[in-house]
Amino acid sequence: MKKILVIGAGRSATTLIWFLGNHAVANSWEVTIADASAELVHQKISGYPALNGVTVNIQSDIERSLLINRHDFIISMLPWTLHALVAEDCLQFGKHLITASYVNSEMKELASKAKKKGLFFMGELGLDPGLDHMSALRLIRQIKEAGHTITSFHSYAGGLIAESCDNNPWHYKITWNPRNIILAGQGTSQYRHEGALHLVPYNRLFSSARPIAIGGKDRYEVYANRDSLKYSSLYGLTGLASIMRGTVRIRGFSKAWDAVIKLGLTDSQTPLGIDMPITWAKFVAGFLPQDASKSLRALCAAFLNIPETDTVLNQLEWLGLFSDELIGEVGLTPADYLQNLLTQRWKLDPDDRDLVVMEHRIQYLNGNKTMEIRSSLEHEGTNMDKTAMADLVGLPLAHATRLFLKGAFDQVKLSVPFERQVAEPILAALETDGILFREQLLDMGPASTVNQVT
Amino acid sequence: MKKILVIGAGRSATTLIWFLGNHAVANSWEVTIADASAELVHQKISGYPALNGVTVNIQSDIERSLLINRHDFIISMLPWTLHALVAEDCLQFGKHLITASYVNSEMKELASKAKKKGLFFMGELGLDPGLDHMSALRLIRQIKEAGHTITSFHSYAGGLIAESCDNNPWHYKITWNPRNIILAGQGTSQYRHEGALHLVPYNRLFSSARPIAIGGKDRYEVYANRDSLKYSSLYGLTGLASIMRGTVRIRGFSKAWDAVIKLGLTDSQTPLGIDMPITWAKFVAGFLPQDASKSLRALCAAFLNIPETDTVLNQLEWLGLFSDELIGEVGLTPADYLQNLLTQRWKLDPDDRDLVVMEHRIQYLNGNKTMEIRSSLEHEGTNMDKTAMADLVGLPLAHATRLFLKGAFDQVKLSVPFERQVAEPILAALETDGILFREQLLDMGPASTVNQVT
Repeated sequence: MKKILVIGAGRSATTLIWFLGNHAVANSWEVTIADASAELVHQKISGYPALNGVTVNIQSDIERSLLINRHDFIISMLPWTLHALVAEDCLQFGKHLITASYVNSEMKELASKAKKKGLFFMGELGLDPGLDHMSALRLIRQIKEAGHTITSFHSYAGGLIAESCDNNPWHYKITWNPRNIILAGQGTSQYRHEGALHLVPYNRLFSSARPIAIGGKDRYEVYANRDSLKYSSLYGLTGLASIMRGTVRIRGFSKAWDAVIKLGLTDSQTPLGIDMPITWAKFVAGFLPQDASKSLRALCAAFLNIPETDTVLNQLEWLGLFSDELIGEVGLTPADYLQNLLTQRWKLDPDDRDLVVMEHRIQYLNGNKTMEIRSSLEHEGTNMDKTAMADLVGLPLAHATRLFLKGAFDQVKLSVPFERQVAEPILAALETDGILFREQLLDMGPASTVNQVT
Repeated sequence: MKKILVIGAGRSATTLIWFLGNHAVANSWEVTIADASAELVHQKISGYPALNGVTVNIQSDIERSLLINRHDFIISMLPWTLHALVAEDCLQFGKHLITASYVNSEMKELASKAKKKGLFFMGELGLDPGLDHMSALRLIRQIKEAGHTITSFHSYAGGLIAESCDNNPWHYKITWNPRNIILAGQGTSQYRHEGALHLVPYNRLFSSARPIAIGGKDRYEVYANRDSLKYSSLYGLTGLASIMRGTVRIRGFSKAWDAVIKLGLTDSQTPLGIDMPITWAKFVAGFLPQDASKSLRALCAAFLNIPETDTVLNQLEWLGLFSDELIGEVGLTPADYLQNLLTQRWKLDPDDRDLVVMEHRIQYLNGNKTMEIRSSLEHEGTNMDKTAMADLVGLPLAHATRLFLKGAFDQVKLSVPFERQVAEPILAALETDGILFREQLLDMGPASTVNQVT
């Protein structure tokens, strides 16, 4: 009987736990769900008699190592900064480990030691990173195996709200780590277009968003997602003239978020130096030129150089930025206050269904013509608990667990799911869950001359 | 014989070491200068027979604690992140400690423990923080003791280049930590003006710089320096309607630096994802809309919305941002590349004299009138080694050391130089060194009605 341990029972673990709860008996798995919160564990395992629940203080070396040592296969759903603690124990006690987080240099080194001990250590087994790699690499392999030369690669993804549940002027609700939403895009986003390097700093990333149709639906926009350049070598596309990964939002989000950034509300470095609570209106006014004769909305409009009737101002007002509500305890950063506000305003209702979209667009030469293959996924959640986000993070992990325990991954070399023998069985299993990419082939006309980096 | 140890012999320790070298024998001090670099120690102690030099690996607990344990009074000139290592040893072995850095919560706690053991632990004994506190608090005390009500406080400071050595279009050279120059202003700057809160995010801090005369010379500009609000309580000015600390530059700097920020060159988060070295021209072009028919200067002008003849473009070009020089090894952040460039372009020549300016402006009520006292310091360096910056960081530390060892600070309670018994003897000693504030009293007309926070 294989003993599986899930550490971390938060929002994105819901579908993983659901899968393990439904498949434990048939597969002779003994499954334990561990979290710091007893309440969360209780809530997540209820209805699944096959699941055991325990609480654990992950920072306690004794608690953590005792727990890990009595299992065989560990799934860490902790924040990524805590994976190394778990990985050290897994290495010491000879346990297999998977995560849905990026494999950083520390985890890569631990994975390489684990490999030498015959252990399976793999990260990037969720949605993004995870499903994005597996689906893009499958397409790339298919095109190369057909003998074609790839000339451009674009991949777009976003965690959104389903059209029927989209009832706020931002067309957005929170389905993942709210901190990452506040800080999204800080730094320099990087991609290559028709041979030229493009560097996009935070101060103009969201104003650079452009309209796009995904899965044929013309209601989205996309902005550059961090460093796309490194995918040239990761995906075996070195020298490609155009390569870009983008983040998808429903149209209208990015212009308003750009206003929030321009105002200065996303700074996470500087605690506010006032010694008494103030209102949102006074706080936001602090960022604007002072003029007692004008309304805050009018001052914002002038500052943003938009008409007072602009939708962006409705979006800011709807959040409560012009309100007389207090911003909260003193001494936090603008980003902290904003996060507390958005967590309330962009909260899922119980029956809300979220939506994850992903689309890869790969161009290749076919004789004198350029062809483009578009491969799109749209997946809706069930409700505020079993979200599309939780499905697409949890199901790849669940299938990886199942497949590994069946012996399907015995020859695997990498610590990321880039190998066909890992990716293809997982993608096939997801298809049986109804999670599948739909493909479309377009003739883009005569081949361009700009296909390689100059 | 008192044994003094200076740890860290970098740029800002020059004048401190000069002072100790000249006063050691007369005061019966045994002085050791320690640094990681043998070359630097050798260079700094040469010419001073009274000084001993040693090398030390500050991260080695054994080396560091042995060194500290054989001295009585420690002056840490290390980067601020390393002070706590030294402070822990000083606490353990019963040694006195001073620094020129901000006393953060960790150092404050160590200082409080040291106080209980009868030790002298004090930070903020340099220029800024240091001389700024001591000189401002002396003025505030004088005005309050004369029975006046203070209505506004402004304090401006800058590390600049002397007018006669100002021979580049930026009117700026590097006299302190270059990393801090690159990252200056990130976060949210905060101050209060006539009762209203002002919050200035990084994206418009430098474009908000305004012209100012310092010491009567009308060639400067000033922008808000981080969190001025906290000085309300620190300086006993709670409820003041106007309080602002500002950073001074020679006019013309801030508009061009704002362009550097707008381009995106100060991001310190994101390594550039290219796999081969590129030129500055290609790197900067990456941040701009692509148009092969236009020169990089023209693209920059269009992007910044300024004429192609604008001085800002001359400043950018003078730095080498449009050149065919390579930016350097791959994998660094934009801020790293910029720092490497500026360290060369803004380097002091051997005979260059730098300039430190500081001016406090305090308004107070005198009957129905508002009076303003202006207290200004201008101090020039001697050459690229004995800079004004090194003088004004090193001499307060040097006098604090001398005065403490004479027993002048026996009743001191705080870990910052806010008490009269610390500040006034140091200020008096600096006057004998020729470092003095000149005061001017202005009648500002009838008292305003906005004097307190509303």
